[in-house]
Amino acid sequence: MDIAVYMRDVGQQARAAATLIARSTTGVRNHALMATAEALDGARGELAEANARDLAGGRENGLDAAMLDRLELTPARIDAMIEGLRQVASLPDPIGAITDMTYRPSGIQVGKMRVPLGVIGIIYESRPNVTVEAASLCLKSGNATILRGGSESIHSNQAIALCLARGLAEAGLPEASVQVVKTTDRAAVGELITMPDYVDVIVPRGGKGLIERISRDARVPVIKHLDGVCHVYIDSHADPQKALDVAINAKTHRYGTCNTMETLLVDKEVAADMLPLLGQAFTDKGVELRGCEHTREILTDIKTATDADWEEEYLAPVLAIRVVDGLDGAIAHINRYSSRHTDSIITENYTRARRFITEVDSSSVMVNASTRFADGFEYGLGAEIGISTDKLHARGPVGLEGLTSQKYVVFGDGHIRA
Amino acid sequence: MDIAVYMRDVGQQARAAATLIARSTTGVRNHALMATAEALDGARGELAEANARDLAGGRENGLDAAMLDRLELTPARIDAMIEGLRQVASLPDPIGAITDMTYRPSGIQVGKMRVPLGVIGIIYESRPNVTVEAASLCLKSGNATILRGGSESIHSNQAIALCLARGLAEAGLPEASVQVVKTTDRAAVGELITMPDYVDVIVPRGGKGLIERISRDARVPVIKHLDGVCHVYIDSHADPQKALDVAINAKTHRYGTCNTMETLLVDKEVAADMLPLLGQAFTDKGVELRGCEHTREILTDIKTATDADWEEEYLAPVLAIRVVDGLDGAIAHINRYSSRHTDSIITENYTRARRFITEVDSSSVMVNASTRFADGFEYGLGAEIGISTDKLHARGPVGLEGLTSQKYVVFGDGHIRA
Repeated sequence: MDIAVYMRDVGQQARAAATLIARSTTGVRNHALMATAEALDGARGELAEANARDLAGGRENGLDAAMLDRLELTPARIDAMIEGLRQVASLPDPIGAITDMTYRPSGIQVGKMRVPLGVIGIIYESRPNVTVEAASLCLKSGNATILRGGSESIHSNQAIALCLARGLAEAGLPEASVQVVKTTDRAAVGELITMPDYVDVIVPRGGKGLIERISRDARVPVIKHLDGVCHVYIDSHADPQKALDVAINAKTHRYGTCNTMETLLVDKEVAADMLPLLGQAFTDKGVELRGCEHTREILTDIKTATDADWEEEYLAPVLAIRVVDGLDGAIAHINRYSSRHTDSIITENYTRARRFITEVDSSSVMVNASTRFADGFEYGLGAEIGISTDKLHARGPVGLEGLTSQKYVVFGDGHIRA
Repeated sequence: MDIAVYMRDVGQQARAAATLIARSTTGVRNHALMATAEALDGARGELAEANARDLAGGRENGLDAAMLDRLELTPARIDAMIEGLRQVASLPDPIGAITDMTYRPSGIQVGKMRVPLGVIGIIYESRPNVTVEAASLCLKSGNATILRGGSESIHSNQAIALCLARGLAEAGLPEASVQVVKTTDRAAVGELITMPDYVDVIVPRGGKGLIERISRDARVPVIKHLDGVCHVYIDSHADPQKALDVAINAKTHRYGTCNTMETLLVDKEVAADMLPLLGQAFTDKGVELRGCEHTREILTDIKTATDADWEEEYLAPVLAIRVVDGLDGAIAHINRYSSRHTDSIITENYTRARRFITEVDSSSVMVNASTRFADGFEYGLGAEIGISTDKLHARGPVGLEGLTSQKYVVFGDGHIRA
């Protein structure tokens, strides 16, 4: 197979489908989502069979237990995919909404209409349920999608693709509205990210290495986050119980997520009071602590944190702790080392809370709340395709709106410019 | 001078200034704008002298009359710069606005805060008044700016830069908030567009060649439009007088602007009625017409339009005319040849108007209005830094809001994720 020719064909079909899907009604797109849910429900046997082939291949190729777990399509995960499709169908349709319509002194009426972006390329790793999640959000927002999953999940993804094709066909939408790339050749990714004529934006999901590579080589815009080095800062005016609750939750609720706290900052004025409590609580949870010199004067039996720790996304039961010189020290540390994902202050002080949310330059800034809340569902977006740490276009959790654009609409009555 | 070292120094200073300017109050930023206006007013002698040097240099280097005209800082143009600064100062401050603040079922409160992008690089050609226009919009929106003007206007730009520095200093803002690159070495542009650590976005203003080059080579996002191949489509249900008024205005109000009509589409059902009237009107205005075969059956003495004409931005008294097969023919032509800038339908038919605004994929779509309205001032943005034909981040005329981003703010009371 000539990968370049194949991918260009996929791109052309996606572009043609995008025009049709952009004009489709809310009802038709929801019909496709619901019909896909039914198709998945009716294809449990085929899905299990395809997934078994991927799992067998994965074992042969020596995938580790965590990878194999992510690859597995259990009945509960199929249920979740079906439920997800129904939830996306029930979300309000962003497309076509006209807002800010006003009359101008010239007499023309100007507003903005929300429209799809066009063709969205999704590149992801082993979890096959991403195929449905990503496709459903793109479909709901009127975009065509080209999905490129990991090679280890190719059979599962193709089985899911058949269900999507059935759902689209039933709603009268072109099957090319959602295409799952059929080759595992890595050259397909290189083509996908360098076809500006056929692809409007790339959303990569996966490890930092994958995303860095894609961002560097892409010739189209990329909606991405590289990593989540999230902070909680315990201010001297913090309520101690809130500080303890939030710090424990932000670190230990889940270790492998991008909104998990990786560095805890403690105001030096309360370090002697707070650190022993925190140290005990984290040790009870089995979290390895690494502290700055000042921290280690109080928690004497923990490891030393080096400069590399401040930049590390552990994704594990490991936490770096630094004692800082008040709010200024905290903000300086965060704006230097944070990956600009999510950072939280714990304080009862009005002025410090206000300064923190103004001066910390991250996609989510919080007061007295766990960083774990940085999530499309928790924010009320209904769902998310990812979390952006970029500043342009979409920032923070990206829901349906992040997959759309706006165009200006102007209504006149023969108006000409004077 | 080592250009790379110099530009990195400029970038570092801009990044440091961006942090301070982002925290500055509306009043301080407006003060800087007003003080710059006064500084310009007080520096008319220096400005004239610097501009005379540029004009003399331009003449020596054989710049044509149009280039020399754009380069000239007449007293009226200085007045316009001063007035522009005052207008930008009077615009509402977009920064810090918190919107969509809602309580979530978890109890947290989530909203969005509008924030500056950070450091904006502006690359432009000979008009020195762009220095003030661009700097004032970036300053108002809390961004630091690095300006790289054309080498032919270096003395004028440096004289303007002194006034900006005076204005910034008087308001207590760092002078590095606005930096005008001091070297005419073209390598400076190459550096400016490849410093993602120091520059958040590039806004190029100038010819298509410049913008294509910058977009290709940039390692940071670019807000741009390449060209304006704008269309007016006269539907069979058009009011003939509105059609005539709008077509003439869209083409002849100004020839050199990106929102000027370059191709006129006429429904075949009214071609025999409309084309003679249009032909006469355009000929009276001295506009050269180039028509498709069908057009030339009616306007027999005009030139033939080739395929190249459909893609051409003339920026001159030249107009391509094509007879199309109804609304479908018009939409097909526009979505193929339009530069997705601005396209207008003239019709009294409700359904056709509705289809046109939905199905034409351009940054501005209009009904019964001249394409010349596609402009930040006319749309009520107060001012514009440019017009974007991209779909991501900013689309259409880009005002202050396009120079900003939003971050999520979350207020809790010790909330943790369950």
